[in-house]
Amino acid sequence: MPNPNYEKYLNDPDDLIEEMIDGFVKSHQKKIKQVSKRAVARKEAPIDGKVGVVSGGGSGHLPAFMGYIGEGCLDSVAVGDIFSSPSVDHIYEAIKAADGGKGVLCCIGNFTGDIMNFEMAAEMAEEDGIEVDTVIINDDVASAPKDKMENRRGVAGEVIIWKLAGAMAERGYSLSEMKEIADQALYNTRSMGVAHKPCIMPTNGEPSFELDEGEMEIGVGHHGEPGIRKAEMTTNDEITEELLNIVLEDLPYQEGDEVVVLINGLGATSPLEMYISYRKVYNMLEEEGIDIAKNYIGEFFTSQEMAGYSITLTKVDDELKKLFADPCDAVSFKQMQEDI
Amino acid sequence: MPNPNYEKYLNDPDDLIEEMIDGFVKSHQKKIKQVSKRAVARKEAPIDGKVGVVSGGGSGHLPAFMGYIGEGCLDSVAVGDIFSSPSVDHIYEAIKAADGGKGVLCCIGNFTGDIMNFEMAAEMAEEDGIEVDTVIINDDVASAPKDKMENRRGVAGEVIIWKLAGAMAERGYSLSEMKEIADQALYNTRSMGVAHKPCIMPTNGEPSFELDEGEMEIGVGHHGEPGIRKAEMTTNDEITEELLNIVLEDLPYQEGDEVVVLINGLGATSPLEMYISYRKVYNMLEEEGIDIAKNYIGEFFTSQEMAGYSITLTKVDDELKKLFADPCDAVSFKQMQEDI
Repeated sequence: MPNPNYEKYLNDPDDLIEEMIDGFVKSHQKKIKQVSKRAVARKEAPIDGKVGVVSGGGSGHLPAFMGYIGEGCLDSVAVGDIFSSPSVDHIYEAIKAADGGKGVLCCIGNFTGDIMNFEMAAEMAEEDGIEVDTVIINDDVASAPKDKMENRRGVAGEVIIWKLAGAMAERGYSLSEMKEIADQALYNTRSMGVAHKPCIMPTNGEPSFELDEGEMEIGVGHHGEPGIRKAEMTTNDEITEELLNIVLEDLPYQEGDEVVVLINGLGATSPLEMYISYRKVYNMLEEEGIDIAKNYIGEFFTSQEMAGYSITLTKVDDELKKLFADPCDAVSFKQMQEDI
Repeated sequence: MPNPNYEKYLNDPDDLIEEMIDGFVKSHQKKIKQVSKRAVARKEAPIDGKVGVVSGGGSGHLPAFMGYIGEGCLDSVAVGDIFSSPSVDHIYEAIKAADGGKGVLCCIGNFTGDIMNFEMAAEMAEEDGIEVDTVIINDDVASAPKDKMENRRGVAGEVIIWKLAGAMAERGYSLSEMKEIADQALYNTRSMGVAHKPCIMPTNGEPSFELDEGEMEIGVGHHGEPGIRKAEMTTNDEITEELLNIVLEDLPYQEGDEVVVLINGLGATSPLEMYISYRKVYNMLEEEGIDIAKNYIGEFFTSQEMAGYSITLTKVDDELKKLFADPCDAVSFKQMQEDI
């Protein structure tokens, strides 16, 4: 069986999702179980008396989505093909696996296919008597103007919402309380990304976007969607400043605010570069009089081997700070998180 | 200030090490302190009555080396330029910062510059009355034949030795006990890597190695050093099988053995690919009658954005299993580790 493209370490691309799930479940078998061909869940799910937290989406974003299953985070995940929505049946299986009698909160990115399929699956679950509500995550400032927020894509801010929803569920919040607080936290969460090298689609060997040599896309999406402008690559400081200023002005985040900062590597961008960016973020926020409550630096939501990163801010109050501080045993959220 | 190459997110390359350290310390300021221009240490170091555990090496490998500072792992680290040894002075500062009166164990990769500089720093520390011993990590099977093990390079197995040495130090082992057990664990630790795309050196924009399109290097080192052969890229299963068989035959690991498996991404290779490789490792070890005690899958010791990964096995006994299970609060070792 020849490798259909020489860009990465795969077998037959038709098998890659099943092989990935198989490897993931084998690796995390004390915490994770497979509940259908394309759905995985926390080993102990469903948990009686706890609201279930469910997500899912296209593959090619590991550690998203499966890596966020675990105590204090997601209960289950439906798995799609590379960059395409999971099917209704497997979302339905994921919802059923998460339902402990108090309802299920689906926290998904704002993508048409995902929304449509999660809606249909929710209807099927509701016919079974499972109460379902949904948070549509739209943190990507680049993807629509502020007065069209409903058109914005979900990017790394999804990770923030999963963590907060998971913490609320563990604390015994009701489905309606969770929905309300998650929506408020989401409103306070804004992201901007940059990329200068695409990932290669495993199915056909094509790049996810094309740029000239030395060019970058400011505001790129997680699938390589165009952002707000193409520009010549410049220094990390200048790029960080542009991304952060766009985020700051959008809410706006202001003097006296307290924020969680997430710097997310899209795949091929190293921690070396992300820490250099964090240094600039830190200095800029200090100048603005905005306090950093916690920072996450690492690869939390990738686009395979895309080169680039994003900056996400969440404005926090005492309630959100408490939820951020709660224990979280999801595989991929133990990584590189610091209170400061 | 123009970016001297368009390959990554940097400012003036002359400043990159200082900017990286600055960002790292700002991010992890509750756990990490800077003790010299190029040395960082655990906030509470030195810890009275505990052997200090020190490492260091060239930059460009994050999360190695700084990410392994923390409870149950390293006490301090000296930081070199990209891919080159830290200077004697900063290693000396790192050793002093780690010394709590019971001596210091330096655990470093088998590279000439590092060994020479750590030796000179150890002599300086010994003149101050600090007892120093050193473990020279040489887990890379590809870099020399078995009867010339002293010539083998250190690769991802370094992470394993840091974790074990850190656990022993927390348990109050003496320097001589730690040295003996670490050397034994090291003997039982073997790695093999593969890469097909180089990283770009930030200083001059040159790739770390050159291969033809569609070619891979079996046995590549962490700086892009040549391995045992170049070959056409093939399937992940075939590559994993080749890497794992070379590792298995080298100790050899045998039926009835229990092992820890570490799959380390070199930078641009995604968890998707690593989990597919783990699935094959799991199946092969099951067939061999070798039991997996624990697995680590992620980016633990990178080579900037090099595309490739390595497989490391450590044969464990009850003593090592106990040490692996001990708490470890180093920034980067909380990530993606599972008992199975």
